[in-house]
Amino acid sequence: MTKPAGSLGALEELAVTLAAASPDGVASSRPATAILFAADHPVARRGVSAYPQEVTAAMVANFVNGGAAASVLSAKLGVDLTVVDVGVAHPVPLPVLTGKMHDASKNAHHASVRFFREDIASALVGDIAVEDGLPGNLLERAIEAGVRAVDRLAQSARVLVLGEMGIGNTTVAAAVAGALMGCDAASITGAGTGVTGEALEAKQETVRLALQRVPPGSAPDAVLRRVGGREIAALVGAAGRAVERGMIVLVDGFIVSAAMLALVRAVPEVKPYLVFAHRSREAGHRAVLEALDARPLLDLGLRLGEASGALAALPLLDLACALHTQMATFEEAAVPGKVSPESHP
Amino acid sequence: MTKPAGSLGALEELAVTLAAASPDGVASSRPATAILFAADHPVARRGVSAYPQEVTAAMVANFVNGGAAASVLSAKLGVDLTVVDVGVAHPVPLPVLTGKMHDASKNAHHASVRFFREDIASALVGDIAVEDGLPGNLLERAIEAGVRAVDRLAQSARVLVLGEMGIGNTTVAAAVAGALMGCDAASITGAGTGVTGEALEAKQETVRLALQRVPPGSAPDAVLRRVGGREIAALVGAAGRAVERGMIVLVDGFIVSAAMLALVRAVPEVKPYLVFAHRSREAGHRAVLEALDARPLLDLGLRLGEASGALAALPLLDLACALHTQMATFEEAAVPGKVSPESHP
Repeated sequence: MTKPAGSLGALEELAVTLAAASPDGVASSRPATAILFAADHPVARRGVSAYPQEVTAAMVANFVNGGAAASVLSAKLGVDLTVVDVGVAHPVPLPVLTGKMHDASKNAHHASVRFFREDIASALVGDIAVEDGLPGNLLERAIEAGVRAVDRLAQSARVLVLGEMGIGNTTVAAAVAGALMGCDAASITGAGTGVTGEALEAKQETVRLALQRVPPGSAPDAVLRRVGGREIAALVGAAGRAVERGMIVLVDGFIVSAAMLALVRAVPEVKPYLVFAHRSREAGHRAVLEALDARPLLDLGLRLGEASGALAALPLLDLACALHTQMATFEEAAVPGKVSPESHP
Repeated sequence: MTKPAGSLGALEELAVTLAAASPDGVASSRPATAILFAADHPVARRGVSAYPQEVTAAMVANFVNGGAAASVLSAKLGVDLTVVDVGVAHPVPLPVLTGKMHDASKNAHHASVRFFREDIASALVGDIAVEDGLPGNLLERAIEAGVRAVDRLAQSARVLVLGEMGIGNTTVAAAVAGALMGCDAASITGAGTGVTGEALEAKQETVRLALQRVPPGSAPDAVLRRVGGREIAALVGAAGRAVERGMIVLVDGFIVSAAMLALVRAVPEVKPYLVFAHRSREAGHRAVLEALDARPLLDLGLRLGEASGALAALPLLDLACALHTQMATFEEAAVPGKVSPESHP
């Protein structure tokens, strides 16, 4: 290629990652498709968020109807969007609901927008401060919901963008990440939607109580069962299935990264298929990324979730592929090579 | 908008920057257009680069013919590309040359690719280690070439992507930046195309000699005249003219940033119109960005130049505009607001 070796930095590494996962060895980022898993959390009653629990259901409708950041970004980028309710507490204000696919493509500016409700169990059980977040077979059922969401995708899909929505889920993600990394509540708990003062203290106390419920050295599945949430388990299932299919998973912020930490601890072989999109402003994200030895592509001070950071990074994957497949070689372009190649490290 | 205030971080700041520069107050990143200024430098004879001087002319043809990184990126992004020879030493292997526009749009995958040669003066004068880089009226003529390049753009253009090509020009840029910031040769001189060992020592020595030729506290125009180069002066002229037209300038790596430091020192009012695209791996770039109080959008370890980093950042401007203009408000989407707005800082 007509450039000094390595001079395209992370874009070259991205191209190698995408090419390695590709069935024909050609770096490819398209089709790309996004799945958002939404769920509610009983810890919301503990005042851990700046927003009421009703926001989860309203935002699910907003995703589908095209008004949310995730909707605008995926539409602009030509990315199909699937929204999966894996345990939203309040009724989602959409015309078609339980058990049936809602195709909103005509309402939004997307190639395709779909909504699906998984009827896992009441979202009102599982206050992780005092009881298991995913009791009984809920962990398995939430993971399976994630697997099913990927199985519904077209076989051609190359990149899976993962995101989430759920009032209270930075609290749950902090507990999951804290338990996996063995760190304390204060260091892993952040502002989430923007809590300060008493609400932040309530959030830290909730995470502290949750972490006390997890024996040190617990396996990832035990951590998820004790202090996880439905959308976090679904993210684990979806990413695992996507990697089985040879897709690249584009990882969003703190919550998706916490889910990926659980997955990588359980199945280290998935790691080369994960591309970390950005470093969130959420306090605990840096530690989770370090635990994953991940260098994210972007660091833009985002803290919204809903795959917004992952979608913002997708053009870098597209450009890396274009460079990898379309640049001329020194020979093709008749550009003279280095004066003394041996002087280069 | 249906998101916590500030949760889109730098994307929100970008939208504000783009909206402020827009005649109708609506954030807009398109049409975007790229100009690459190419020139040679007598310091190349001092062994400061890993590549021979002939590469500059060959790469100019590669830009126009579609095989270079800048060509691939601008084509993929739908960005018109103009390549301006402001002092390339060797003949550019393109069918149409001196004084006439070469339209290569049919050969490349671009909306538009144009090549223009400015006949400023021999590229063989101006070894900044021993004599002025832009003697006589060359500084003014190179700046005017940059102004003219912008004057040729369609009036509708909103974003100007600036880049450069020139074997030896990280040496010249290091001298310009070092003189403007008052720092020594060792701290501002980096690997450029990838020099190490003796070549890096020759490069540092060249910068040291050049810096000795600039009296401390010299004005930006005096610095450019003493130790500048044609493409760096053209970048200054182009950016200044673009800002006069109300365009946003998307700044590439070390060399373009050094030119922007000269411009901002001379005309501080341009600063709000400059968007810094990325932090290059070139050693001196961090210091130049700090001198400009600039927080670049990307940090991907790029060190190629030719607007590659600026082009890689353009999608972030596009997405910032889409979010700014297309997201629903809380009211439109019927999403409940914060529980206690006063708890938010």
